[in-house]
Amino acid sequence: MKLVVIGAVAAGLSAASRARRLDKALDITVVERGETISYSACGLPYYIEGQAGSIDDLILYTPERFQAERRITVRTRARVIAIRHARREVLLEGGERVPYDRLVIATGARPASGTIQGADRPHVFTLHTLDDARRLNEFLQRQRPRQAAVIGAGYIGLEAAGALRARGVGVTVFEASSDVLGRRDPELTQRVAAWLERFRIGLRLNTPVRAIEPDRAGDFPCELVVLAAGFRPNVELAAEAGVELGATGAIRVSEQMETNLHGVYAAGDCAETIHLVTGRPVWLPLGTTANKMGRVAGASAAGMRARFPGVVGTSIVRVCGLAFATTGLSAPQARSEGFDPISARIEARDRPRYFWGEPVTVELVADRPSRRLLGGTVVGGASAAGRINVIAAALAQRMRVDEFEQLDLAYAPPYAPVWDPLLIAAQQLAKL
Amino acid sequence: MKLVVIGAVAAGLSAASRARRLDKALDITVVERGETISYSACGLPYYIEGQAGSIDDLILYTPERFQAERRITVRTRARVIAIRHARREVLLEGGERVPYDRLVIATGARPASGTIQGADRPHVFTLHTLDDARRLNEFLQRQRPRQAAVIGAGYIGLEAAGALRARGVGVTVFEASSDVLGRRDPELTQRVAAWLERFRIGLRLNTPVRAIEPDRAGDFPCELVVLAAGFRPNVELAAEAGVELGATGAIRVSEQMETNLHGVYAAGDCAETIHLVTGRPVWLPLGTTANKMGRVAGASAAGMRARFPGVVGTSIVRVCGLAFATTGLSAPQARSEGFDPISARIEARDRPRYFWGEPVTVELVADRPSRRLLGGTVVGGASAAGRINVIAAALAQRMRVDEFEQLDLAYAPPYAPVWDPLLIAAQQLAKL
Repeated sequence: MKLVVIGAVAAGLSAASRARRLDKALDITVVERGETISYSACGLPYYIEGQAGSIDDLILYTPERFQAERRITVRTRARVIAIRHARREVLLEGGERVPYDRLVIATGARPASGTIQGADRPHVFTLHTLDDARRLNEFLQRQRPRQAAVIGAGYIGLEAAGALRARGVGVTVFEASSDVLGRRDPELTQRVAAWLERFRIGLRLNTPVRAIEPDRAGDFPCELVVLAAGFRPNVELAAEAGVELGATGAIRVSEQMETNLHGVYAAGDCAETIHLVTGRPVWLPLGTTANKMGRVAGASAAGMRARFPGVVGTSIVRVCGLAFATTGLSAPQARSEGFDPISARIEARDRPRYFWGEPVTVELVADRPSRRLLGGTVVGGASAAGRINVIAAALAQRMRVDEFEQLDLAYAPPYAPVWDPLLIAAQQLAKL
Repeated sequence: MKLVVIGAVAAGLSAASRARRLDKALDITVVERGETISYSACGLPYYIEGQAGSIDDLILYTPERFQAERRITVRTRARVIAIRHARREVLLEGGERVPYDRLVIATGARPASGTIQGADRPHVFTLHTLDDARRLNEFLQRQRPRQAAVIGAGYIGLEAAGALRARGVGVTVFEASSDVLGRRDPELTQRVAAWLERFRIGLRLNTPVRAIEPDRAGDFPCELVVLAAGFRPNVELAAEAGVELGATGAIRVSEQMETNLHGVYAAGDCAETIHLVTGRPVWLPLGTTANKMGRVAGASAAGMRARFPGVVGTSIVRVCGLAFATTGLSAPQARSEGFDPISARIEARDRPRYFWGEPVTVELVADRPSRRLLGGTVVGGASAAGRINVIAAALAQRMRVDEFEQLDLAYAPPYAPVWDPLLIAAQQLAKL
C-alpha cells in the first residue's frame, strides 16, 4: 500500500508521521517542491527581529531524519504538476509518475499579492518561506533601509512591523480593511493602533496600496516593502483533479479529512474546516490547525478512524512585546452570524502588585438569550496565552457564562491574582 | 434588613460586598476577631521570601475603605462567642449582642498543631496571619537561625521551605504522610523531592514530628520551626448553634451556601463543597474558592438566586522558582474513588528552543472506560498556571480525552510550541 503526501511543511509531515505510527508496512513518500521541509513559518518574523540566532533554528527535521527515524521518503524539489486520480498517480515536473493508493494533499497556501502592481520588485518581500526571510534579512543588512511599508495588518504584518522596528527601521502598516488581525473588532483595532503608536509605528486603516514603485508604496516613500496581505489556499492542483472546493475557496473535507475523491485527503492551509462556534465552514490557515488536520488525515489514510471536529479560531500574536490573543467571535462578528451578542471588557492585573503584576485586558462575548460564550480577547503579558486557551476550551464545550464564572482556576501570588481576570470579566458579563 | 457576617478575610468580605451590590438598602456589619482584614494569607510565604517589600502590600482593604466605598461596617477585634439563632443575634465577647436577619459564617480555618508537644514554644511559627509572618520575619532578622524544620509538606510548608532557603537558612521538611501537597501522587512527590534536593532542602516523608524542644524538632537539631501541618475548619461556633457539619468536618452547605439553619449561610475555609470530579463533598480550603463561595453566600443572603457548583481541586505552588500545579485527581486517588484510571506523562518545552523554551511536564489522568478526564499535573515555568487552568476547565465540563486532544490552543513562538504540551499529553493518553 502506497501513501503519497504532497507538501512537507506542517500538515504533510504530520500526516506522514501519523500514518507511519499506525501502519508500519505502509510505503510513504512525501513530495515537496521546495528545498527545505519542516520549518516554522510562524517563526520567520521573529528571526527577522533577531530572536532566532540562525535561520536553521527554525528547521525542525531534515529529510534524512525522516528517512532514518520513520522510514518516510521525503523528496524535495519535486514539484507535482498533476494529480491523475483515475490512474492513482501524481505527475512530477520532469515527467516522473509517482503511484499512490492513498493521497494526502497538503499544498498549503501562498501570500496573496492581489492586484498590487510592482509586487515583484526586488525590494518587496513576503515572509512565507525560509528563503523569503533569509533574503529580507540580507536586504536589511546590506541596504539599511530607513523606511518600510508593511502591507497588511494581519498577524504576520504586525509581527513584521514590530520586527523591523526592532531592527531600527521606520515602519508604517497599510491595511485595506478597517480592522487589524482579520477580526472585525473596533476595540481591538483601537488597542493595537494605540500600542503601535507608542513604538512610532504608523497604522493606516482603510488604505489599500495599489502600486509599489522603487521608492514608494502608494504615496508613501520607503525603501522596503513587506507584503503580508493575507493568503490564498493552493488548491489549483486539487481542483484540476476534480477535488471539490468549499464556499471558502479552500478544499472541502469531511471530519476524517477526506475530500470528495475516495482515498484522497486534504489537510492544512489548503483545506477548510468547521468553525465550532458558528457551525459553518471556515478557512483559517494556522500552523496548529494544519498539524492537527494532518494528523487526522494521516490516520484516515492509514485506515484508522479519526476525526477533526473543527476550530474555534484561536490565535495569539506578539507585537512589540505585548500579546494580542483572540478566540471565537468578536461582538460584531457574532451579530453578523445571527447571535444577539453581549460583551464585557475588564482591565486587571495578571498577578498581585507585589509580584510585578502587569495589566491584562480581557473581553468576553456571549449570546444574550442562551448565555453561551461566543468569543474572547486577551491583551497583556505572556499569561495571555494561558488565559485565551481557557476561553478556547470553554468555546469548544459550548460553555455558558454562569458556568465559566465558577471555573476553579489556579491561584498563587506568583502566577495570578485571587480573582483571575477571566472570572472578573465573566462576572461583569453575567450582570448583562 | 440586617446582614451580619462573621469573619473579614476572603469569604466574609466577598459576601458582604456582593450583598451590598445587590441590595443597596441592606444594613451590613462584618465582625472580625483579628486586627487586620482583607489580607492575602497566600502571600505570607512570599513576604518571608522577601518578595513583598512591606507586609502592608498584602493588605487589600481597610475597614475605613469598606465603610466609605461600600457602606459596610467592619468591626475588628470583635470576637463572636455565640450564635443565638433562635433570637437571631450573635453575642460578642464583652456581652454586646448584634442582631441579624441573615447571617454569613466565614470563620475560616486555623493551623492544625495536632498532638505536637511544644508547638507553643517561642521559636515555633505558623504562617496564617499577618502577625505570624511579621513575627517570623523579626525572628529571622534578630536570631539568624541556621537550621529550620518545616513541619508539613503541603503548599504552605513547601513555600515556607523555599522562602527560608532564600533567606539563607538550612531547611528540612518533615511530612507525616508519604506524599507532598496533600495529593496521593508518588510521581509528583518524587519530582518535588528531587527539586528540593537541588536547593539542598531536605524532605523526610513518613516522618511525623511529635515533640519540639528549644533546640530540636523530633531528633532534628534546629533553632526555628515552621508549623504547616494542615488546617482545621473553625466550626465550633457554628456547631454549638446547631449548624450541621458534613462528613469532612466542615460546615455542610447547599449550592446556595445555605446551612441547615434558614437564613444562615457559610462560606470559605469553614465550609465544605462538592468535588465536581467525584461528585462528593470535599473540604479544600483555598483563597479562590473562599471568595467564590463568599460571593454566592452574599447573593443568597441578599435574596438573589446564585449557586456555587463546586471545585475540581485546582492548585498551584511555586517552590524555589518552579511551579507545581495540580487539578482533579491523581491516578491513585482516581482508583480509590472507583474509577479505572489511565494516565500519560510527557515532558516537552513550553516554547520553541529559540525562544528559551523551558521544560514542562504534563500528566493527564482519565477514566479508561468512559475516556473522561479526571485530573492533571503541570510542572514547569510560569506557563504552568495557564495550562493547569485549561485542564481545570475541561474537568468542569467532563471533557473526554478525544475532545481535549483537539482543543484549539493558541500558538505563536513567543508563547507556545506548535504542539502544545497539553495536546501532546492528550495524544499519549489517547493511545492507552
